[in-house]
Amino acid sequence: MFRNLFANVRAKSPLVHNITNYVTVNDCANIVLACGASPIMADDAAEVEDITSLCAGLNLNIGTLNSRTIPSMLLAGHTANRLGHPVVLDPVGAGASHLRTETALRLLREVKFTVIRGNISEIRTLAAGSGTTKGVDADTADKVTDETLDKTVAFAKAFAARTGAVVAVTGAIDIVADGERAFCIRNGHPMMSAVTGTGCQLSALTAAFCAANPDKPLEAAAAAVCAMGLAGEAAHSRLSRLDGNATYRNYIIDAIFNMTPEQLEEGARYEMR
Amino acid sequence: MFRNLFANVRAKSPLVHNITNYVTVNDCANIVLACGASPIMADDAAEVEDITSLCAGLNLNIGTLNSRTIPSMLLAGHTANRLGHPVVLDPVGAGASHLRTETALRLLREVKFTVIRGNISEIRTLAAGSGTTKGVDADTADKVTDETLDKTVAFAKAFAARTGAVVAVTGAIDIVADGERAFCIRNGHPMMSAVTGTGCQLSALTAAFCAANPDKPLEAAAAAVCAMGLAGEAAHSRLSRLDGNATYRNYIIDAIFNMTPEQLEEGARYEMR
Amino acid sequence: MFRNLFANVRAKSPLVHNITNYVTVNDCANIVLACGASPIMADDAAEVEDITSLCAGLNLNIGTLNSRTIPSMLLAGHTANRLGHPVVLDPVGAGASHLRTETALRLLREVKFTVIRGNISEIRTLAAGSGTTKGVDADTADKVTDETLDKTVAFAKAFAARTGAVVAVTGAIDIVADGERAFCIRNGHPMMSAVTGTGCQLSALTAAFCAANPDKPLEAAAAAVCAMGLAGEAAHSRLSRLDGNATYRNYIIDAIFNMTPEQLEEGARYEMR
Repeated sequence: MFRNLFANVRAKSPLVHNITNYVTVNDCANIVLACGASPIMADDAAEVEDITSLCAGLNLNIGTLNSRTIPSMLLAGHTANRLGHPVVLDPVGAGASHLRTETALRLLREVKFTVIRGNISEIRTLAAGSGTTKGVDADTADKVTDETLDKTVAFAKAFAARTGAVVAVTGAIDIVADGERAFCIRNGHPMMSAVTGTGCQLSALTAAFCAANPDKPLEAAAAAVCAMGLAGEAAHSRLSRLDGNATYRNYIIDAIFNMTPEQLEEGARYEMR
Repeated sequence: MFRNLFANVRAKSPLVHNITNYVTVNDCANIVLACGASPIMADDAAEVEDITSLCAGLNLNIGTLNSRTIPSMLLAGHTANRLGHPVVLDPVGAGASHLRTETALRLLREVKFTVIRGNISEIRTLAAGSGTTKGVDADTADKVTDETLDKTVAFAKAFAARTGAVVAVTGAIDIVADGERAFCIRNGHPMMSAVTGTGCQLSALTAAFCAANPDKPLEAAAAAVCAMGLAGEAAHSRLSRLDGNATYRNYIIDAIFNMTPEQLEEGARYEMR
Repeated sequence: MFRNLFANVRAKSPLVHNITNYVTVNDCANIVLACGASPIMADDAAEVEDITSLCAGLNLNIGTLNSRTIPSMLLAGHTANRLGHPVVLDPVGAGASHLRTETALRLLREVKFTVIRGNISEIRTLAAGSGTTKGVDADTADKVTDETLDKTVAFAKAFAARTGAVVAVTGAIDIVADGERAFCIRNGHPMMSAVTGTGCQLSALTAAFCAANPDKPLEAAAAAVCAMGLAGEAAHSRLSRLDGNATYRNYIIDAIFNMTPEQLEEGARYEMR
């Protein structure tokens, strides 16, 4: 199944509009190109309606949100909703500041999202309507483990049912759920957390997969999560003794570039719950 | 000839002011350093006059234009014109939104450009005064091929004559023209389009070449285009089986860093039309 | 001594708030991760108090300062001062525009800095209260050499005594001084100046080291400077014939990622003056 979803990205090469942060934006653009889609970044309120209309999918990432770009995100979201385009929310650092929490909640109220992707702390903050995140990484206390997996799956399904979005909680074990089914995904490598923006990149990748497969958001999001994890594994196996997180960053994007739909199909490791 | 133009960049190490987008800005800075020049990025209206005055060339790129930086571009452009410094325009995505098209056209009206560099769809939009670009990449229908080359050369010369700028239309075949002569350049590699910002990098490189050779804008722009294409070839020949677009990005910049003026002279593949 | 300071960074993994420029921000985030700390970038006035409060250190870099982020820097600085968190100032390009000079001087007046890190031209501008820098690189006339070392050490100590900050003047020879003691550091490699943002990265690294060692700002800053220089040496020794400044950039971050506290202790080359 993932084979076809990925093949669609390569075949359709959907244009993806990203309003994202300036920290990881270059890697987001390159990973979208690596998967076979085409990125465009545009964040001024005066042009986001035009740009969103031109694209097949939208990715909203609040990593360096500001007073100028928040209205742009809302406007782009409304436009994508009106046109029926898939929209991904990456609530980077929700819980770390009132501005991030309130903005993410406002986006959730005013825009219908196809996929919400974040770490467990960010997603908990959104579900609770408030929260205290330690920065942009998940709190240790929140980590998803085999022990807490069932509880977290139930939480993700409930939040998905409430929002109507696919909820992707990514970490050591990734959960991608709609209201009824959940993919529990075990691809990836711990060293990915030493590269800034692997989460941002995954959200951009998810938007590309959803744009190419608009009628299968759950499966498309799961395929993107597996592809990212698999790329993290492949990239890690290439590292030599002197390589560190910067080379690893490049190799992850390279691995998406070289990944075939068949390799994704075979390398995806997940169970349904 | 290209030998001397490149040697001048290395010898003079001109300071280049870039008002560019946040997607590819780091690569632009590194490629300017790689060629032997020195980059400075500054986009606040309160300082662009100071910064432009300090520099030998200006590069204006509308890739993530916004309400704050558009006035800065105009102000920097006026300053560079007053001082007689070369100015490059990269109309990223002109045609993709009204804001981009109108801003590019306004820049064209109010600033005298030394070089205008874009893909064929962007340049057509500027020449027509309107247009519909598919995002930031050239439309397939617009692609420059051997069949359409003569027509596109005539178009580029006419647009150059009208604007007084050197016009660089880059793609599979690159055309660099003033009103009378055109370089048709066949350096480069198709995989360059899988790296975000190779066009942006080329515009920054062009500004560096023009800043070091202010009395030869046509030849300087053609030399920069050949250098970028040659770097794309050299970088591609280094790629191993597992390398993808991220490693390729680094190798392209590395190739500019290691390129000698002699290698540029020998590797440049062009004809005049 | 440096061993323990670095080990503290790895053990405590302090969260570091960066208000920095969009040119080199990704490398800053990755080098903070490489050293074992955790970065967060946030520059909107509506959230910087929250974010600074959450963090253990603050890094203010004026590389692409603008009307929106200058108030954020002041607000974040005041918050960090109130909480007693270490604050680093990187006055990128002070002297290159009135806006940069005035902003850096205003930050110096209104915020108590733990460390001020810049090249000699930038630091001279701050000490003189005015100046003319050639862009973002040090003027050749200002370069610190063995001949001018004693004079520059005295200058750095005097400026440190006046501001109450540790002053880090980085270049071919690095000087890290408080009012009484100065580390003269001879790590590093000339090719580091061909990579954009090695100074920005060092400032982010310094903030991480100070955040993990808040009671030893002089030693923490010196350790960060040695670590960066040592990484530049290690990275350079890995370069092959075709590698250039882009690969070098990655290898420098990789070298921080792989550096052990013992290697820093052994590799640091400095004398006290």
